[in-house]
Amino acid sequence: MFVLVNLKTYPCDSVAVAQAAAEVDETTDARIAVAPQAAHLEAVAETGVETWAQHVDPIEYGSNTGHTLAESVADAGAAGTLINHSEHRLTLDAIDGSVRAAERAGLETVVCANNPAQIGAAAALGPDAVAVEPPELIGSGTPVSQADPDIVSDAVEAAAAVDSDVTVLCGAGISTGDDVVAAGELGSKGVLLASGVAKADDPAAALADLVEPL
Amino acid sequence: MFVLVNLKTYPCDSVAVAQAAAEVDETTDARIAVAPQAAHLEAVAETGVETWAQHVDPIEYGSNTGHTLAESVADAGAAGTLINHSEHRLTLDAIDGSVRAAERAGLETVVCANNPAQIGAAAALGPDAVAVEPPELIGSGTPVSQADPDIVSDAVEAAAAVDSDVTVLCGAGISTGDDVVAAGELGSKGVLLASGVAKADDPAAALADLVEPL
Amino acid sequence: MFVLVNLKTYPCDSVAVAQAAAEVDETTDARIAVAPQAAHLEAVAETGVETWAQHVDPIEYGSNTGHTLAESVADAGAAGTLINHSEHRLTLDAIDGSVRAAERAGLETVVCANNPAQIGAAAALGPDAVAVEPPELIGSGTPVSQADPDIVSDAVEAAAAVDSDVTVLCGAGISTGDDVVAAGELGSKGVLLASGVAKADDPAAALADLVEPL
Amino acid sequence: MFVLVNLKTYPCDSVAVAQAAAEVDETTDARIAVAPQAAHLEAVAETGVETWAQHVDPIEYGSNTGHTLAESVADAGAAGTLINHSEHRLTLDAIDGSVRAAERAGLETVVCANNPAQIGAAAALGPDAVAVEPPELIGSGTPVSQADPDIVSDAVEAAAAVDSDVTVLCGAGISTGDDVVAAGELGSKGVLLASGVAKADDPAAALADLVEPL
Repeated sequence: MFVLVNLKTYPCDSVAVAQAAAEVDETTDARIAVAPQAAHLEAVAETGVETWAQHVDPIEYGSNTGHTLAESVADAGAAGTLINHSEHRLTLDAIDGSVRAAERAGLETVVCANNPAQIGAAAALGPDAVAVEPPELIGSGTPVSQADPDIVSDAVEAAAAVDSDVTVLCGAGISTGDDVVAAGELGSKGVLLASGVAKADDPAAALADLVEPL
Repeated sequence: MFVLVNLKTYPCDSVAVAQAAAEVDETTDARIAVAPQAAHLEAVAETGVETWAQHVDPIEYGSNTGHTLAESVADAGAAGTLINHSEHRLTLDAIDGSVRAAERAGLETVVCANNPAQIGAAAALGPDAVAVEPPELIGSGTPVSQADPDIVSDAVEAAAAVDSDVTVLCGAGISTGDDVVAAGELGSKGVLLASGVAKADDPAAALADLVEPL
Repeated sequence: MFVLVNLKTYPCDSVAVAQAAAEVDETTDARIAVAPQAAHLEAVAETGVETWAQHVDPIEYGSNTGHTLAESVADAGAAGTLINHSEHRLTLDAIDGSVRAAERAGLETVVCANNPAQIGAAAALGPDAVAVEPPELIGSGTPVSQADPDIVSDAVEAAAAVDSDVTVLCGAGISTGDDVVAAGELGSKGVLLASGVAKADDPAAALADLVEPL
Repeated sequence: MFVLVNLKTYPCDSVAVAQAAAEVDETTDARIAVAPQAAHLEAVAETGVETWAQHVDPIEYGSNTGHTLAESVADAGAAGTLINHSEHRLTLDAIDGSVRAAERAGLETVVCANNPAQIGAAAALGPDAVAVEPPELIGSGTPVSQADPDIVSDAVEAAAAVDSDVTVLCGAGISTGDDVVAAGELGSKGVLLASGVAKADDPAAALADLVEPL
């Protein structure tokens, strides 16, 4: 299972969470990565944890101000990037462009979407993975695998129908190891997490609990 | 073949073009429709021509200002709507929402996209049809079926791989009956047209020429 | 006082509300106008009531799909247009472009904004009027003149400091004649209304009550 | 004069340009700053040069993915930020929100705009400075002070009429010391530069030439 911790713009210490994640990663077969803000990518990557960007723009080197270039994100140490997170929706052609930009820079890609139909659409663009996150569950503390397990299995089916190489992650409301196990049983290959780890008093303990049953 | 004439915000007389289209429609097996601006829908529908909207928003009845409600478009006489035209790109979730809104209002849907990958994505959202229009050819006078025939046949294949019920139209640069025939031979079931008819001195003659070889 | 009724995408009968507004307009010194969806502009204008658009885009005649052209709105019978309503925010340069487009088409302009600083900014673009509407009060039933009277008087001051020719309307939560009077006493020259009239069982009675104390 | 070098997403070595800028800054009375991508802020700030962000979002600490938080930019070493660059247009309320966010984080602000009317609007939001950049001249090599000197003096007047504390920079096409001097004579207190320095074979020499006549 892939456990991807999105630090959003939380008032957490990105480097401390990254160090905690790096530690826990050594104790588990799960794959753990941390996605900080662009300004923190380099410092997070220096901890040795697998580092992801939260977003890249559908651009190339050139005249773009205030945008996130895939190549710069990769140079700063990122191995992958989220695209089209529910807090950062993109036009269909921009998602396509961002996936192409990330590929060009050697970044792995996870395209987020709301429901199985959009997961199918995202899979058609050929990312490495898609992540299904019903917006109403984000930050709710109720895991999608419990609130709406069909949405996960339907998303897995929708992605497989379009491109069997695209794996499915699931997000929204994941906070315990049981949630992660349940997500796996529904066919997902990983989870997107945020507040459950980033806002925990002890991020290392929170992460250790999450991967413990794996 | 379906011939859908997008009047954009051209300085043409929408009603006159609609009347010309209604006339030509009676002389041919092709299906002809006209897509005026929202403010002209009712007047165009009164000519008896099949009328389409250029866009609907992913909204319901309620507190939305300056948006296009699918139900209002249908009440004004529209039978269908374009969604995500290259001059009006939407986020992936908005395309999904607009297709759902159009269905709810009984409108047929054509989702536009740039290339075969995005056509596959659009097809995954379950519209009635998708339209492939390489932006660089729009208004160019060079038909996509000539400039880049593979993009049409690849789009047909991409849509069929995702959902065989979704038909494919093609747009950009279509201006002669031969272009329409070529589009059909590449597997498309119709064409999107704009300036070739809307800006013609004699729109009826232009349309008659277009459908003559069918 | 100017009473501008925004019909949004409410499930009301636009023509019936327009007829009610036209009737009440004959009985009062207040100026009454109705702003329907683009697809209803022509039918509303035919009632004889002063008709406004809810939005125009910063475009000219040409290749624009699914946008609202100021000229088409004016041809359909509109005398003015809202711009940058809180349900349809625009970039600063688009607000500028929309005001210029409206002027070109002979439409009066009201640019909406959230707070006195933005009202000053909107006034600097030279519209006919600006409208201050705190988003948290829209549809609340609590009038801005009561919940936060300073925001209205500060907006009047901010607009006057930038351009004394720009009048100020106020919106959000207006539902009684007393609210309209209070808005006037704070220096505004009119009100934006929506649900209070559009969703009333008897729109004519609701409007008559509103203008009665004027 | 303030010389602010925007590195955009150019394929330049941000740290090398920053070092060159830091060197030249020691030789001149002009104030020199460099605005790299968010992912490069920390490395650029470590050179000791005054560092600016290219953009901040109108957000606070919290659930925002892929956005630029003013506090993170400040922590990474930025002293100020561009807002609403012509390559990154924002809604009016987002410009207001971004200026407030930057203030809260102790960042100086420069709001960009197209023309004198928009400069007045930007000044009404109370930033530290505004920058007038006609989009058609960006990257053209023709300085605005030469192509359209009135736009600079009109912008200076428009800003002063709204808020005399807001200074005016000018951008677009600046590449020589004479351009900088001309900008100053028209009333601007600084210049925005990009390709002239960032793409120069010898950025230090390019910058030295620029500030030499001051």
